[in-house]
Order: sequence, then structure tokens, then C-alpha cells
Amino acid sequence: MTKNVFSALLACSLSVSALADEGMWLFNQPPRQILKDRHQFEPTDAWMEHLQKASVRFNSGGSGGFVSEDGLLLSNHHVAADALQKISTKEKNYLRDGFSAKSLADEVKCLDLELNVLQSIEDVTAQVNAAIPKDAAPAAAFAARRKVMAEIEKASLDKTGLRSDVVTLWQGGAYHLYRFKKYTDVRLAFAPESQIAFYGGDPDNFEFPRYDLDICFFRAYENGKPAKIQHYLKFSTTGAKDGELVFVSGHPGRTSRLLTVAELEYLRDQGLPFRLNSLKRTEVLLEAWSARSEENARRAKDELFGVKNSRKALDGRLGGLLDPSLMGEKVKAEADFKAKLAGSAEHEAALAAYDKIAAATKTVAAQATRQNFLEGGLGFSSDSFGIARTLLRAGDERSKPNGERLREFTDGGKESLEFSLFSEKPIHDDLEILTLTDSLTFLAGQFGGNDPLVQKVLAGKSPRERAVELIKGTKVRDVAFRKKLYEGGAAAVMAAKDPMIELARLIDAEARALRKVFEEQTEVKQQAQAAIARARNALLGTAGYPDATFTLRLSFGVVKGYEEDGKQIPAMTTLGGLYERASEMNRKPPFDLPPLWEKRKSKLNLKTPFNFVSTADIIGGNSGSPVVNRAGEYVGIIFDGNLQSLPADYAFSEKQGRATSVHSAAMYEALTKVYGAKTLAAELVTGKLGK
Amino acid sequence: MTKNVFSALLACSLSVSALADEGMWLFNQPPRQILKDRHQFEPTDAWMEHLQKASVRFNSGGSGGFVSEDGLLLSNHHVAADALQKISTKEKNYLRDGFSAKSLADEVKCLDLELNVLQSIEDVTAQVNAAIPKDAAPAAAFAARRKVMAEIEKASLDKTGLRSDVVTLWQGGAYHLYRFKKYTDVRLAFAPESQIAFYGGDPDNFEFPRYDLDICFFRAYENGKPAKIQHYLKFSTTGAKDGELVFVSGHPGRTSRLLTVAELEYLRDQGLPFRLNSLKRTEVLLEAWSARSEENARRAKDELFGVKNSRKALDGRLGGLLDPSLMGEKVKAEADFKAKLAGSAEHEAALAAYDKIAAATKTVAAQATRQNFLEGGLGFSSDSFGIARTLLRAGDERSKPNGERLREFTDGGKESLEFSLFSEKPIHDDLEILTLTDSLTFLAGQFGGNDPLVQKVLAGKSPRERAVELIKGTKVRDVAFRKKLYEGGAAAVMAAKDPMIELARLIDAEARALRKVFEEQTEVKQQAQAAIARARNALLGTAGYPDATFTLRLSFGVVKGYEEDGKQIPAMTTLGGLYERASEMNRKPPFDLPPLWEKRKSKLNLKTPFNFVSTADIIGGNSGSPVVNRAGEYVGIIFDGNLQSLPADYAFSEKQGRATSVHSAAMYEALTKVYGAKTLAAELVTGKLGK
Repeated sequence: MTKNVFSALLACSLSVSALADEGMWLFNQPPRQILKDRHQFEPTDAWMEHLQKASVRFNSGGSGGFVSEDGLLLSNHHVAADALQKISTKEKNYLRDGFSAKSLADEVKCLDLELNVLQSIEDVTAQVNAAIPKDAAPAAAFAARRKVMAEIEKASLDKTGLRSDVVTLWQGGAYHLYRFKKYTDVRLAFAPESQIAFYGGDPDNFEFPRYDLDICFFRAYENGKPAKIQHYLKFSTTGAKDGELVFVSGHPGRTSRLLTVAELEYLRDQGLPFRLNSLKRTEVLLEAWSARSEENARRAKDELFGVKNSRKALDGRLGGLLDPSLMGEKVKAEADFKAKLAGSAEHEAALAAYDKIAAATKTVAAQATRQNFLEGGLGFSSDSFGIARTLLRAGDERSKPNGERLREFTDGGKESLEFSLFSEKPIHDDLEILTLTDSLTFLAGQFGGNDPLVQKVLAGKSPRERAVELIKGTKVRDVAFRKKLYEGGAAAVMAAKDPMIELARLIDAEARALRKVFEEQTEVKQQAQAAIARARNALLGTAGYPDATFTLRLSFGVVKGYEEDGKQIPAMTTLGGLYERASEMNRKPPFDLPPLWEKRKSKLNLKTPFNFVSTADIIGGNSGSPVVNRAGEYVGIIFDGNLQSLPADYAFSEKQGRATSVHSAAMYEALTKVYGAKTLAAELVTGKLGK
Repeated sequence: MTKNVFSALLACSLSVSALADEGMWLFNQPPRQILKDRHQFEPTDAWMEHLQKASVRFNSGGSGGFVSEDGLLLSNHHVAADALQKISTKEKNYLRDGFSAKSLADEVKCLDLELNVLQSIEDVTAQVNAAIPKDAAPAAAFAARRKVMAEIEKASLDKTGLRSDVVTLWQGGAYHLYRFKKYTDVRLAFAPESQIAFYGGDPDNFEFPRYDLDICFFRAYENGKPAKIQHYLKFSTTGAKDGELVFVSGHPGRTSRLLTVAELEYLRDQGLPFRLNSLKRTEVLLEAWSARSEENARRAKDELFGVKNSRKALDGRLGGLLDPSLMGEKVKAEADFKAKLAGSAEHEAALAAYDKIAAATKTVAAQATRQNFLEGGLGFSSDSFGIARTLLRAGDERSKPNGERLREFTDGGKESLEFSLFSEKPIHDDLEILTLTDSLTFLAGQFGGNDPLVQKVLAGKSPRERAVELIKGTKVRDVAFRKKLYEGGAAAVMAAKDPMIELARLIDAEARALRKVFEEQTEVKQQAQAAIARARNALLGTAGYPDATFTLRLSFGVVKGYEEDGKQIPAMTTLGGLYERASEMNRKPPFDLPPLWEKRKSKLNLKTPFNFVSTADIIGGNSGSPVVNRAGEYVGIIFDGNLQSLPADYAFSEKQGRATSVHSAAMYEALTKVYGAKTLAAELVTGKLGK
């Protein structure tokens, strides 16, 4: 499933041909010409604005879309999983068992779910660049850039009251100010059982044909009442048709298509292998622990899903980088472009930029493991550590001028930070001890038992003893304690002598130093990328789209099957296919069906389309994105890509790569015939609450 | 489960106090004084010989014991799993479903199971050491040692017709010649369902209380008839009693108790973390693949079990090395002993030996990863590669004089090598492609895509493409082809141009070079260890037992519970407890019961002891070892150790560490009341086949 947003490195430049349904386009720079040429479609400004404002960003990662004027919105079950897990208890398992609110009063408030709706985009590139002193060293340039970005955000927030983020596009080639309307009172209206939402589990994840009802309905509230929504998508009960043009409006997290070869090689040889190693380690840990009891399984479920999902996605990406047909193309394209640059004095800087990026990549690579463990927190995996560090750093950062703080502590992000920090989400001691023990063991194995840092961290104890001591000793799982320390500032944090906060302090100087080097090298790369971008625009023109950055993007494509091992895979599956799959797999988990689906089978029109694929260009973060037709009607929801789409992080291909969606007709069929959710179904059809 | 035999490094010296039930004692140097002092037991020579000759070594790893004069022997289901997997097909799954032969004619011949029964032990230390030229360089000393060992083995084989192995004990302090009677016609008589043999699966593995019927009956044949066995153990239907003294006779694979601190630190900081990384990677791979279909699961089952079992065992061992209470003791003991040596000119060499071992460890550590991938075959995981390499090397080695060959190709081991090489065991293309793709990916990630070796191995293809090409292209899965090449020698191997053999050839020079360095450093360590051993004997006396080396050992202990988290864990579980565990876990896999066990519950005496723990000192390889009482009666079978016993690789502790056995009364109860295996049960009671 395409939820997770991965960190990656930065890079070069790409020109898009009109020969493919490629691109994650900015809403302020849509691919008008390509749409006209390829699909004879010319979206109006109103069409664009409507789709933009009906699109929802899950701040925790993922996408969604409004489908009623009364705040009803639709996302994926797996995007919702984090929120469902947090409101679940041993007695009431929303994540596993699903939920259907009988009325508004019945809807369940989420603990810390923040939704963002993009209101406007403003290009602030000139303002940002003007603030960087000419010939400044990377550290000074980075500091100046951070400062001006924080100032722009704060000024915008003060003026508009909207969440305001300056986002970096084109790897530093452009800076845009995104303003969002924010919803923090979000309530659960309907979720299916996880068994049908994620039918086929890990084995069928990223596969097609597929049979998942991966949906979840929330409602945004304001002032205790359903939010009034001007821009919502009209729900189509007939849904997408084979061969038709569709659009995806969502928030792809991160792509790496503009990386230089040096950066891709780093990912292939170090970045991805290391991350996969870490993921597989955690998967084994959580899987083994989950098997010990049902309550363990419940507690670890959302995290385990995320780990398995990332592992499968990254295995596919690494496979792409190890495929000479992809890497060979990248090497050739870069060599060709460099050859173009080589002759010209004008583009000397662009040519030199490649070496600068390679050198910066090497510097970052040399410290990457240590950075992952310390600044990335890999050595201390636990919610408690994350909270402890936030408290520690908040104490230190908030007394600095706004522009000099670490990005996550600026005034512009204050509300969101506090919303997340003071969440009442449940944190389980036993799971915390499990993951912390394992990550301390990982740390010790990585650097060796005699390493001074390891000895300092373990304090003469075994990883297990140390984890027990820290988790049992810390008070950061108490929200009132957090508030007290956050409000009291550095002095209160220091006075608390909390063992987990003290651990965070113990490693903070080194963690910050590693981050500083990383940020400086990022600045070096951004400046180099800007030079390459200028040359590219001069030589190849300016059409194109920047790499994904968890900003709103428009993708488009055609509902269309593909060929695999000589077999034609049709674009759509049906509800009937679900039951066939269950029979074929003897209904053994994860191919068993929820009881309600067994019971109501005879009521269903088994020919109803269930899941479908399209050539739209998506990636992790697009999960939950509305799929609309030319008329702007809601015809489906993105929830996955197929295995062949995984290398799309580096290069799009529509030969076999496909985006996978739940068909809106299946949603309607399931709501009415399996779940008897008549009120909800009526709201979808009318676009408003019944009176 | 304590089946697997791990490679490990070598080392120093240990003295055993009579204060614990510690020790894996040589049958020619039993702990008579300790048994007398602690347990007032004095075994006669006849008692020892009877137990020795009733004990069986599974050449594939594991132990067993004869229980009837007609060749019937008993081991663990998980030791038998390899053999059961090999005779299984999609239609008839012996491993999962179990089997009960109705008559002799019904017994199923295993494909490549070799059993060894120890007939005699001869100390050849003087002969081996006399062959080493004085002041020879390590390489020359190693070659001379390899030569004399091969000569001794060949001479013994020629003279006695028995399998003859010179084994290294005390890390090079002694060399003994072990002569075995060999059985290669071994047939399956009875196996329970894997669901009861491995009840509770990975979650309950290495845990206690426990409820596993981890047994399997085979019968050894000679000349097409049941072998006549003089020494077999009288089966006790009442079994072990709480508090009584018991003995374990089996083949512990490898312990590392005499390692120096430098060697332990290598294991803690590099050896174990690397191996765990590799295991977890394979676990995720096989688990995900198994979930895709039942047939996949069947094909991968035995290997997946082995991987999970090793992973849990090694996690426990690493936990031990990261526990300052264990490592601190090791550091202190070594420092104390070195302080004793420091004063004396006589022991100068012993003191210097520690530095030599540390230096050799460093040299080995520096090349360990590359050695694992190339010589260890980690980069090419597949049966096809293993066979290809054996064919390649057999061609090269067999033309050399016996004493100059790699150990595995000497004349002494010829029969066993051929028996294994020409096995008709099934090898599945799809599983081969899966594991080979993954290990090529692992290789590329480890050394980088631009590494010359990686490029040579991948030959311009992606790991997946290359794996498909190799597996589809090789003929080594055809036994007739193997025989032809083996008989034809190097010229035939070369002429075949088999792609997998050519891959093995491609890396062979480097693989051999790595092995050569490893062997030289092993020689350095062995000489250093011998110096330490001499000093130790002079200063502390000679009582003790060498580290385990998959040679027959006698352990002893008391049936006894232990305390955990303030709770007393009784020594025994009962059949009734099995049903309680199933209820507690809602019978969800792996806590479901086989249908026959549900059906026959009412017939069972639920108070029958099922599993029990004792203080006996065991480790991986001891699985299947008979547990006998003072009278030499068969009262149980070792199948596991508890979690607390896992650090026993490095140091024995009877505080909580326990060996886990199936109680013989439960075996008898199950055979008669669940399985209705009356003939087999009668043979157990009478010690012979019914007429």
C-alpha cells in the first residue's frame, strides 16, 4: 500500500515527454498542453480549484477527499489505521472489527488527527533567494534560508490564520508558500473490518488482481458541528469505466527521479540496503511478539503493517535500482546531458555541480549510519524516546529567535507540534520495552560493545535491563507531565531528571552535530541543483514537474490493464472475484472473509467492479487520493500500486506499472448491501446529511 | 529447538567446579568424581558402553537413540524434518500430516539420511603433533596437520571399514580418532503431525511451560532387513520423575565456552549481528513467500523452521554476550588467569598466546563478511549452487594426493560425500530462484553495484534475471548429470559448461584464498590455545570437558523447575495442560490442535506428564538425545532448552537455564490412545518386533 513517506536524497532534472501519462503536477502549473494533446481535455480554472479544495492531506501521511457538504470525507482504511489504532482498546478494536456510526452523535473523535486543505500557493523563490548572502558558506546559507522561511511562514500565519508552509521544490530550484485550512476535530464515521480492507494481507499487498475495500469515512468538525464544505466531490455510484481518462489529486510523499547517478548509487549500495535491514529486523521482532497473544497482535498491528508495507515497497525499489535497464538509462541520460554542458562556458557551473553533489553525497553517506541511529532515533525506537526528545529540544529551541530554531520548532508549526505532542494516544509499556531493547541491541551490534557511545547509552546494563529501567522510569507517557515540562521550558526539563529525557540529552550534542552536517550538505546540493536546473531550462525548456514532496499534486491516466508473463491482466476485478480468491486460497488467513461478507454474499451483485488499475503516476502518500473523471465526479480511491510500479520512485513507466484503486460502485454496493449503512450511502448520493 | 549446529570460533580454558550439573563430557573421560560427589552415582564401564552404543548421531545434525533390538530408533520430529520434507510431495505431506507404518513393508525409505553410531575413541594427539615440523609457518603447519589427519582416517577406514573421523578437541589441545558404524538405509516408522510435534510454533519455541510431542521413529536397516542392535535402551512407560538424576547422551554441536574475550567480543560486535541480520532477512523472505500459497509453504517449511529457530537461539546468545553479568565474568576470569601467568617465565608463551589469538581474530574478522558471501555461499543461496560447487571442487580435489585435499574431499569421507551428493531429494526451481535472487541482492547491497566481483557475478543483469538464467540453465538438479560429472572429473566438469558450475568457478579462486587465510589463522589460534592449555593444566589441573564439537557427550542433571519473575515454574507439564493452552490461545494457529487430538481427548489420562525440564547441560545438536535414568532406562527425549539456557553457548548456568524434554509416558500415552499405534507401542515395551 502506498502510504508511507520515505526520506530520500535530492538531485538533477527531467524533461517530460507527452508520450506517457507521467507526472505529479503542481496545481499552479498543471499539464494543460499534455492533457490537450494526449486526451483532448482542457480543465477550467474552476475545475482545478474545485478539485484542489476538495482534496485533503492527512498530516500523519496520506490523502483523502471531501464527498459531502457536511464534512464527510473518504480516505483509505490503511491511512486511517493510525487513528483507528489509537482509539482502540482491548475491549473495542476499531482497527480490526470496523465501525459504523448510527448517527452524528455516535461518531468517534480521533485523538490526534490533523487534516490540511490547500487554500493557496504563492511563489516565494525570489524572496527566499534574496535573503541568502552572496558567496555565503553552506552553513551560513542554510541558516539564512531557514530564517527567511520561518519568517515568511510566521508572517503568513499572522496575516491569514492559515497553516503556512514554505515548501522546497525542484530540489531547491523553487520555494512556494502553501496555505492550508486545518481541521483537528475529526471523527470516525465508518470503517470496514481490516480483514476486507486489507484482504489478502501482506501476500497480496502490491499485487494485482486485488480485492480490497480499503476505505474509511471521517467527518471534519468545526466548533463541535460538522464542517460546512463548499468544495466536495460528487460521488458516482457507477464509478470508473475501462479505458476512460481519470485524475488523481493527492499528496505523493517523495520521489527521487531527479537524483544524480551518484545519489542513486548511494541509495542502491547503502541507503536502501540499510533501511531494508532495519525493516526486516523490526518485522521479525513484531511478528514474533504478535504471535504470542492476541492482545500483543492488537497493540503492534498498525506498526507491523507499516513495516511490512515499507519492506515490500523498498524491496521493489531496490530491485529497480539493481535493474540495468533502469540504472543504465539514468547513467546514459546523465552522460548525455553532461556532454551537452561540456562544450559551453555558460554551463560550467552546472557541469561542476555534479561533482559537488557527488562529494556531498559521500560526506552524508559516511555519517549516515550514525545519523540514523542518533538523529533518526533508530537506536531508541519507542514513542517515549520521541516524546522525551521533543520535550528536551522544545525547552532549548523555544527560547531562541524564531528564525534560528530547528525547523520543527518554529512559530509557524507551533499548533501542529503541540497537537501532536499532547496527544492522549495509548502507549504500551511492554511494546515500548520490546522495541527499545531491540534497538539498543541493534545500536550495540552496529558500533560494538566497547564503543564509548554504546557504553554511555547502556550505562553498564544489558539492552533489556536498560530498556526496562528507562521505560518504567520515565514519566513522559503522562500528558500532564509533558505539558508541565513544555510550559516550564529548559529549566523545568532539567529539573525533572526524567531518565528518558536524560538519555535524549546524553546523545543530543552528537545528534545535532550530525544533523548540522547533513543540513549543510543539503544546502550544497540545493545550490548545485539550482545550477543544473538553470542549464536544463536553457537547454531543454521548462516544462515538467518537480519531485514529489508531500505537496498536493495532480496526476492523470487511463483505466487500463497490462500484460504480465504473456498474460493479459484486465483493468478491473469484481466482487465475485473476491469470493473466488477466497475459495482458491481455502479461506486460510489472510484470505478468510469477514462473517458479514460470507453472510451477505447472496445479496450482492457479484459483477460489480471492485478494484481497478490505471496508468496514473502515483507513489507513497497518494493513498486515499480521490480518483475523479472528466466531470470531476468521485469514481474511485487510490490505495496501492502494483509491484511493477515500485521503481517509479526513480523512473515512471506505464508499460506494466499501475496505480490501484477501489471502485466507487463497490463502495456503494458494500455500504448498502453488506453493512446496511443507509444514512451514509444516502449522504454520498445527495452530497449532504439527511434531515 | 536445539537442533542447529553453529560455526563459531575457538579458545582458552575452563575449570569445572563440582557445584553445578555442568559439562558435556567425553565418553572416554566421564565425570566420575563429580557424579559420585554430587549424586552418589558411579557408572560402570558396561553402563557407559551400553549408553554410548545406543546413541545415534544424525549426520545432518541432531541426535537419537535405539529403543529396540530390531533397529527402531527415536529422535525429534524437528531433527527428522529434513528427511520428512525430502520424501514429501504436494499430494503426500509427511512433514505436516505425520505417518504411521502399519507394518515393516509400509515403512518409507529416507532419501539421504546417514546415521552414525560411535564404536570407539582413540587418542591420536601425539601422532598428529609429531607430524608438524618444528617452527613451521602457520600455512605449512596447517597443511601438515590436514595431511596427517587424512592419513590416520584413511588407514583406520581401510583397517576397520568404519567411518573414521579425527576430531579436534580443546581447540587444538587434543585430537581423537572417532570410529562410527554407519547406517544409510533408514526408514520412517512413525511421525506425529507437525502441529503437535511443534505445538505453539515459533512463539512457544524455547519457552517453558511447553507442550510438544517432538518425536519421530525411524528404523535402521542392513541388507534390506531391520538392523540387529545389541545396545538399545529399555523404554520406560512411566518415565522421568521430578527431582531424579538423569543423563543425556547426545551430540552437542558447538559451544564457545573457552573463547578468549577478544573472540567473544568479535562474536558480540560482528559475528552474531551479521548472522542475525542474514537470518532475519531470510525469515522475512520465506515467510512472505510461504504466505502466497499452501504449496509454497510446504516447500519452504523445513528451511523456514530452521531459520526461525536459529534466529531465536542467536538472539538469546547475543543477549548473553551483551549482558555485563556474563561478559563481566569472562573479562574478570581472563584477567585473573593472565595475572597468574604474568609472574612466571615458564608461562610466557601462554600469556603471549592471548595477543596472538586477538590478532588472528582481527585478521579473520576483517575478511569474515567476504568469506561468508563467497566461501560460505551466502551470496548464492540455493541447493543448485551447493551441488555445483561440490562438483567443481570434487573435479579439482580428487586428483590431488589424499592428504592435500580440502577436508571434505578426503578418502575417509568419500562415501558420506557421495551419499549426500547423489541424493534424489526434491529441489524446487521457484524456491531456488527466490533464495538466489535474494542472496544476489544481498551480495550487491553488501559490496555495492560497482564492485568488480558483483559485476562479474551479475553479468550485466538484475539479480532476478541472473537467478532465473542460472536456475533454469543449470543441469545439476539431475542426479545422473551429477554422477557423470563426478566420475568424469575436472575435464568433464569443464566440458559441461554448466552455468551454475561456471559461476562457482568464477568465484572459486577468491573463495579458496579466503578459506586459506581462515585456516592459517585457525592454526595460529590452535597453537596459541595449546600453550594456554598447558599453562592451565599446570596451574589449575586437568579436570574438565572440551567445548562441544558434534562429538558424543554425556551430560547429567536433575529434573527440576525454576523461578522466573518471582513465580515458580514446575518441572513438568501434563497432557491436560496442552488442552488448557489451546483454550487460552483460542486455538488460533499455531495453537490449534490436530483433529485426532481433539477427538481422542476423552481417552487420555490428562495427568500424564508431557514435557519436563532438567539441569542437564545441552546445546544445539543435542536435539533427539535420549534421556536415561540411573538404570539406563529411556525416560525422555531432549528437544529444546528454555530461553534462559541460550547463553549456555558461552557459560553454563543452572539458576534458570534448563534443558527441555518430551516425557516417555506421554509418548506411550499418545501412541496407544491417540494414534492407536499398538505394534509400535508393543515394540517399545518388549524391545523387539512382535512375531
